Amino acid sequence: MSISKIKPGPLLANINSPADLKKLSTDQLNDVCFELRDYIIDIVSVHGGHFGASLGVVELTVALHYVLNTPEDRLVWDVGHQAYGHKILTGRRDNFYTNRKYGGLSGFPKRSESEYDTFGVGHSSTSISAALGMNIARKMMGDDRKVVAVIGDGSMTGGIAFEAMNNAGAMNNDITVILNDNNISIDPNVGALKEYLADITTSQTFNKIRDEVYDMLGHFNKAGDKMRKVASKMEAALTSALTPGGLFRALGFKYYGPVDGHNVKGLVRHLEDLKRIPGPKLLHVVTVKGKGFAPAEKDQVKWHAQGSPFDKITGKSLSVAKTGPSIPKYQDVFADAVIELAKQDDRVVAVTPAMPSGTGLLKMMKEMPDRCFDVGIAEQHAVTFAAGMAAEGKIPFAGIYSTFLQRGYDQVVHDVAIQKLPVVFCMDRAGLVGADGPTHHGLYDIPFMRCLPNMVICAPMNEQELRDMLYTATCYTDRSFGIRYPRGSATGMKVRPGFMEMELGKGECVRKGDRVAVLTYGAIGNHVIEACSILNDEEISIGHYNMRFVKPLDTKLIDSIAASYDFIITLEDGVKQGGFGSAIAEYLAETSHRVRMRIMGVPDRLVEHGTQKELYREVGIDAQGVVENVREALKLLDEETAIPSIAAKPIS
Amino acid sequence: MSISKIKPGPLLANINSPADLKKLSTDQLNDVCFELRDYIIDIVSVHGGHFGASLGVVELTVALHYVLNTPEDRLVWDVGHQAYGHKILTGRRDNFYTNRKYGGLSGFPKRSESEYDTFGVGHSSTSISAALGMNIARKMMGDDRKVVAVIGDGSMTGGIAFEAMNNAGAMNNDITVILNDNNISIDPNVGALKEYLADITTSQTFNKIRDEVYDMLGHFNKAGDKMRKVASKMEAALTSALTPGGLFRALGFKYYGPVDGHNVKGLVRHLEDLKRIPGPKLLHVVTVKGKGFAPAEKDQVKWHAQGSPFDKITGKSLSVAKTGPSIPKYQDVFADAVIELAKQDDRVVAVTPAMPSGTGLLKMMKEMPDRCFDVGIAEQHAVTFAAGMAAEGKIPFAGIYSTFLQRGYDQVVHDVAIQKLPVVFCMDRAGLVGADGPTHHGLYDIPFMRCLPNMVICAPMNEQELRDMLYTATCYTDRSFGIRYPRGSATGMKVRPGFMEMELGKGECVRKGDRVAVLTYGAIGNHVIEACSILNDEEISIGHYNMRFVKPLDTKLIDSIAASYDFIITLEDGVKQGGFGSAIAEYLAETSHRVRMRIMGVPDRLVEHGTQKELYREVGIDAQGVVENVREALKLLDEETAIPSIAAKPIS
Repeated sequence: MSISKIKPGPLLANINSPADLKKLSTDQLNDVCFELRDYIIDIVSVHGGHFGASLGVVELTVALHYVLNTPEDRLVWDVGHQAYGHKILTGRRDNFYTNRKYGGLSGFPKRSESEYDTFGVGHSSTSISAALGMNIARKMMGDDRKVVAVIGDGSMTGGIAFEAMNNAGAMNNDITVILNDNNISIDPNVGALKEYLADITTSQTFNKIRDEVYDMLGHFNKAGDKMRKVASKMEAALTSALTPGGLFRALGFKYYGPVDGHNVKGLVRHLEDLKRIPGPKLLHVVTVKGKGFAPAEKDQVKWHAQGSPFDKITGKSLSVAKTGPSIPKYQDVFADAVIELAKQDDRVVAVTPAMPSGTGLLKMMKEMPDRCFDVGIAEQHAVTFAAGMAAEGKIPFAGIYSTFLQRGYDQVVHDVAIQKLPVVFCMDRAGLVGADGPTHHGLYDIPFMRCLPNMVICAPMNEQELRDMLYTATCYTDRSFGIRYPRGSATGMKVRPGFMEMELGKGECVRKGDRVAVLTYGAIGNHVIEACSILNDEEISIGHYNMRFVKPLDTKLIDSIAASYDFIITLEDGVKQGGFGSAIAEYLAETSHRVRMRIMGVPDRLVEHGTQKELYREVGIDAQGVVENVREALKLLDEETAIPSIAAKPIS
Repeated sequence: MSISKIKPGPLLANINSPADLKKLSTDQLNDVCFELRDYIIDIVSVHGGHFGASLGVVELTVALHYVLNTPEDRLVWDVGHQAYGHKILTGRRDNFYTNRKYGGLSGFPKRSESEYDTFGVGHSSTSISAALGMNIARKMMGDDRKVVAVIGDGSMTGGIAFEAMNNAGAMNNDITVILNDNNISIDPNVGALKEYLADITTSQTFNKIRDEVYDMLGHFNKAGDKMRKVASKMEAALTSALTPGGLFRALGFKYYGPVDGHNVKGLVRHLEDLKRIPGPKLLHVVTVKGKGFAPAEKDQVKWHAQGSPFDKITGKSLSVAKTGPSIPKYQDVFADAVIELAKQDDRVVAVTPAMPSGTGLLKMMKEMPDRCFDVGIAEQHAVTFAAGMAAEGKIPFAGIYSTFLQRGYDQVVHDVAIQKLPVVFCMDRAGLVGADGPTHHGLYDIPFMRCLPNMVICAPMNEQELRDMLYTATCYTDRSFGIRYPRGSATGMKVRPGFMEMELGKGECVRKGDRVAVLTYGAIGNHVIEACSILNDEEISIGHYNMRFVKPLDTKLIDSIAASYDFIITLEDGVKQGGFGSAIAEYLAETSHRVRMRIMGVPDRLVEHGTQKELYREVGIDAQGVVENVREALKLLDEETAIPSIAAKPIS
């Protein structure tokens, strides 16, 4: 990786840890913020990354590290998109250009990366729970240093955040929560909480009423003794009743704010004040996502993250425009198909928890707003909400990333599978996702979904199959479907108009071959097509079977493969334990087949971030990996045939 | 099953559906409530069951079915413990004595049981999400009938309930939520919400201040024109500010209450009023859990559910006292061990989300209140809270039922496994749980846990192993443990004092035998000991291996078993897909062993309720099932040895 040529400003260049920041006067903090913001824009404009959130918290980040004694005081960033400034201030400035690149810094706080990253994040809404646990543990050890969680208003709608507030509020623990209110998550925030916060921050109601009441109370104070007493009691009650943040106070938190999140000196003062206040407290900080970068302030959704270089003034992309027809993403194929299905079938609706842009469903929300619902960061609710619609005769398509479906897992089991309701789980970003890394890889859905009853679990090898699987799901009302597909481009194949119902549990032979058969599940199967052309050059001809369904399994096809080949290799974009290969192994183990087998998948360890291509290579599930495994299989078979009495032959 | 001899009262005897209830005058409703309560107590005192919650909502149940047009209007009961009265009024009175018995009625509402059960429940906090989904779907179809969710204050703390409120509040949908506030869940409710509700229902603050303010405003009205205007504006603002329920109003709900949940005529009036009010609304109903049954009102935790017959006046148990030393439950063994460990190791703490009685941890909460935390119905928070403590050096034991861990699954992946934090998941009630049925069986944890990295996944065969596994978990700080054990009695073995560290991934040979080996995982292994003694009578001697760990797997032991036996049977108390047998199959498939195999586990379909014994028999994983499978295996082997050229022999 080449060294970044981007230079930080003069103050920032000398900040190698928060200790250096603390040497500055509060008057210099404005300049630090300016330099920090500039540095983030410079780096991201060249190297890409999430940055809207980080630009919004530049002042907050500087103020927090200025006031707190990090890492002794614990700072917990929710989600972690916000933490670019934090990383730059905590010794990672010069490496920051490697952010989200293979072998480089993680795009999120990560315990193994720095002692300043006190709790790894990636999924939202966990910070208050973690901070509470940390604070309780430290108190037990007689340690009273501060623990501060910084959470966005979008994350605050996730159920776990509420669970944590409710628990913290009752524990009377000295936890500090900073509510970073920019009124937008990845997609525009939805839900009552948003309106509630907007009411506090934008309307004059609270202040005006309060002023009027105090005016009136003044009159009373001039009146008799009894009246003064009543007025005094009222004043206390009214101050409480008319201060905003009643929601948080109901949960046992002291509420402070709203305060301007872009006034760094003000923030320093507020944070200093908070240090002296015991008990659970919440500081409501109002920020602008993308602050200081005009294009991002204007279009916050678009500028949530940037993958390719752009002009740091205008925001215009610097990528060379591609020529020729572009290959659609699986996300586009999915959204277009659901819209098409919804138009021809009244029962079809769609739900997504805060991922309309990511899943592609934004298009449907615009085109059919009454049929497509973004329920906010609320995976659990999204699933049960879908189940409720299904109970009334709808067929809901739930567009959720594989990794986020983990958060609605109990609802999948309890509200959908057990009730045999026709909810269609469209598991986007299944498999290795790339730059977001371990918190976002969708590696576990095959085992955690295929173990459930009343489920059809499948994965398309291309856009045609994705369309037909989505349609096939609408042909059944007595079971649920789980359809997984990866992040990124489909194959670019020509798709036939309309839909065709697929036979459940029916795989296909992509090509016949000798001795070794590769059985694949989903889009990763395209690596085998690539591998076959390499192997062809070596005059090796293998069989390739696209199994499509892991549940039900095409046992008839497996029987015939086991009878015709000596070695089966399975390939999946997910962990090996309990996955697709495991399903084949279960079947083969219980039958009389004596075929040899190897399972190819993601190994049982963390896989870090990088491009999808880099990661496929690292774990060996790319075309080259298939080629290597085929060669090894043939070698093993050759060794065995040298001992004819125990040849690996099928028993019929 | 014998017909119940318990007779309902004269009014109840004629209520075969809500239509019959509607024929009565409101004056008769009190008598119906009396008879309904009596009938529930009569049945439960003889047949057992949860009933505290149902006694608390007798009046509410009668009022709801009196006012609503069920089943056309949709009534969604949260958790469903509350629904006994509902079942009795909706055509299931005469079968009600079969409640929770094998082949009988479910203890929870269940769609397949009655059209009045609009949404199946069992786990808490789902009702608002489901009701919202149902209402949205019906609106789409131009149907404006009512949808009402009844949710307890305990369930309200579950994150999904908050997610649903937040979403419903913004959708401006006509949903009605009845908050059944009895201020206790299974275990005494914890959290700020509880205090908030108690404040509304018990303190005089709200009413007193309101009175004083109105007094004052009266004075103003006598004053000049300008003052009157201010006073009028203030009145509106203050009415809002000083009405309780601000928390719910902040989430976009109209709040009504608190009202007396035991005044049936009052409830009918309130529910009628609510029918005319558009938008999302919440009626806060205050009830007493166990109402009308003195012992239950006095000790609500103890009387949450009753398994054995009792005297319906005094509450005294009618079970014959057992003689001889009693066999401890796994729950007692677990709790005692954790307490012992906590005493000798400062790092040991315990967490449970609202299951202190069920898991046994109540004992620790009493003995070491600073080291054991009940965080309320909040599984997600419980896991991340534990992770937070682990990040600060603690070793938290999270006592959670297998089925409820599903709700914290993303937190297990994202906050624990990925970060290699030493949280010990003590998965109670793993396997078939008995009377609670499909919503509560813990059948999926083996696949959903063993697919995660940085995990040790194990299951003790007896109390000695449970103790040693718990201790062994404290010997590692760089990985997480998942330890599963079933509901109910341990083996009764003599346990040695103190603890011994177990070697990770090390199984044991329980007995050697010929040709067939049974590999078991966890307490279900005791069925094989039973089976062996049956088989011994037939002069069949099988091998039995207690594998203990599914991750890491004892591959050395498997190699030696595969080399010494011709047939491997695996046995587990969980689904077959992706489970323990699957792990063995994966290993055997990739090695050169040619041993035959059969996986015994719970089949891929719903298993209803009944005693554990009845269910083990039904799915064939009891001793008899093992015997049958061994016989079949031997038969298969005998058939094969008749064809010597393809004998099932290991390849070395």
